[in-house]
Amino acid sequence: MTAPVLTIDELTAFLTREFPQVAPHVVIEALGPMTATMRLRRHEQHLRPGGTLSGPSMALLADVTAYIALLGMIGEKALAVTTNLSLNFMRKPADADLICEGRLLKIGKRLAVGDAVMYSEGGDPSQPVCHATFTYAIP
Amino acid sequence: MTAPVLTIDELTAFLTREFPQVAPHVVIEALGPMTATMRLRRHEQHLRPGGTLSGPSMALLADVTAYIALLGMIGEKALAVTTNLSLNFMRKPADADLICEGRLLKIGKRLAVGDAVMYSEGGDPSQPVCHATFTYAIP
Amino acid sequence: MTAPVLTIDELTAFLTREFPQVAPHVVIEALGPMTATMRLRRHEQHLRPGGTLSGPSMALLADVTAYIALLGMIGEKALAVTTNLSLNFMRKPADADLICEGRLLKIGKRLAVGDAVMYSEGGDPSQPVCHATFTYAIP
Amino acid sequence: MTAPVLTIDELTAFLTREFPQVAPHVVIEALGPMTATMRLRRHEQHLRPGGTLSGPSMALLADVTAYIALLGMIGEKALAVTTNLSLNFMRKPADADLICEGRLLKIGKRLAVGDAVMYSEGGDPSQPVCHATFTYAIP
Repeated sequence: MTAPVLTIDELTAFLTREFPQVAPHVVIEALGPMTATMRLRRHEQHLRPGGTLSGPSMALLADVTAYIALLGMIGEKALAVTTNLSLNFMRKPADADLICEGRLLKIGKRLAVGDAVMYSEGGDPSQPVCHATFTYAIP
Repeated sequence: MTAPVLTIDELTAFLTREFPQVAPHVVIEALGPMTATMRLRRHEQHLRPGGTLSGPSMALLADVTAYIALLGMIGEKALAVTTNLSLNFMRKPADADLICEGRLLKIGKRLAVGDAVMYSEGGDPSQPVCHATFTYAIP
Repeated sequence: MTAPVLTIDELTAFLTREFPQVAPHVVIEALGPMTATMRLRRHEQHLRPGGTLSGPSMALLADVTAYIALLGMIGEKALAVTTNLSLNFMRKPADADLICEGRLLKIGKRLAVGDAVMYSEGGDPSQPVCHATFTYAIP
Repeated sequence: MTAPVLTIDELTAFLTREFPQVAPHVVIEALGPMTATMRLRRHEQHLRPGGTLSGPSMALLADVTAYIALLGMIGEKALAVTTNLSLNFMRKPADADLICEGRLLKIGKRLAVGDAVMYSEGGDPSQPVCHATFTYAIP
């Protein structure tokens, strides 16, 4: 498997420039061949009653992790668009940062497919709070 | 099919009280037996480059529409939790309010299942921008 | 919405010719603009303990219903392939034929998306046994 | 993570006894804590034009792999039922046996959730033909 064609710094700059509503909420923690790990910063906007994170915040984190893993492999293409996002919510997240480990299973000519696992910072990665699968259409 | 046990006003009050981060973004437009229609108000936070709505905003709208349709039938249970949310993004939404028509296909003892279709206000409901399916666990 | 470009007879002949393993198991009951209704014939191969239908048999029915609805609109393209199939199993099917009503929500240049609802013959269509969503890639 | 409470032999005997339509088609290759690997034997019934495997055959393999991984952990409960099965088809399978590696991400009181990756025997496991997620309801 080939290495990413962009660095974490380049992808962070891209996100900040193109997605100003999203960039302040997330941090790219790691980038590898067909993989990316991202962090959702704890923020009041993402909270729900009982001190837990909202489902749509996990959707946001899964979606951006998939996007960064993909752009890391194919270069800056802001127009790659999500066509499917499917989430299984399994455990209550802590009132903490959320870590998402994404992997691409296929980058085809037209579609990229992968999945991701999320766990609360300080929590047990083998007890994930959410699993996501995603498909991106490549322009 | 029996009628809802709560009114739009009661559900709006519940949402405002229990989900203060969500309530300002949505409006309950209609409520029926096993159905709810909701509106996501156009807001800068939901926008993405090119004047379109973000996928996670559509996830939010699908999730809350499912929740309201469900609570309408079973009464106020804040602890009903989403276990699955699956979204197919089909067309670019307009820079406008988004309308979501949700229906429940099953309310069991432990799980409720349904789907929803979303279209931009002023757009063609037969050309939806997103289709969602959802499962809620009932405590 | 335009009418189908193929008839039920033409699609049945196509299915018999191209998918000899599938054709004996199903019947095209109705065909409309962006819609198809199909029947899975009761057959021992599809049964499971307790006299119910297997999940993979419902997957088969959803998949072929989507395919027929799509070919009805775009003509004979055997190479259209399923890229996503997602099934929510909601109730125990009866030991009877299974009816599937499919609809396409989008036929794009590259992807077609839709959903389907299944119920046992003689059962209540408002109490479906399974809901499916599907995506087909168009060659 | 605790070890399985059943052996491959016990699970094979259970499958043969309770699911006579399925058992001849599959082999349990490996069993571990929260994991199972299964093989779908190449059989004409599963083939499609062009010498490839059908999607519903992959649904069958994913479903039974999930079931075996689950029963391995909780013991013989024939009544555990699939509530969601979602499949992303990524590459054309070879005309060969299909291998499925399943893992459980959660076994709760009422729901078990996991995913699976499938590849053709002799193929590259890092180039899977299908990814599946599943939810089982535990009686």
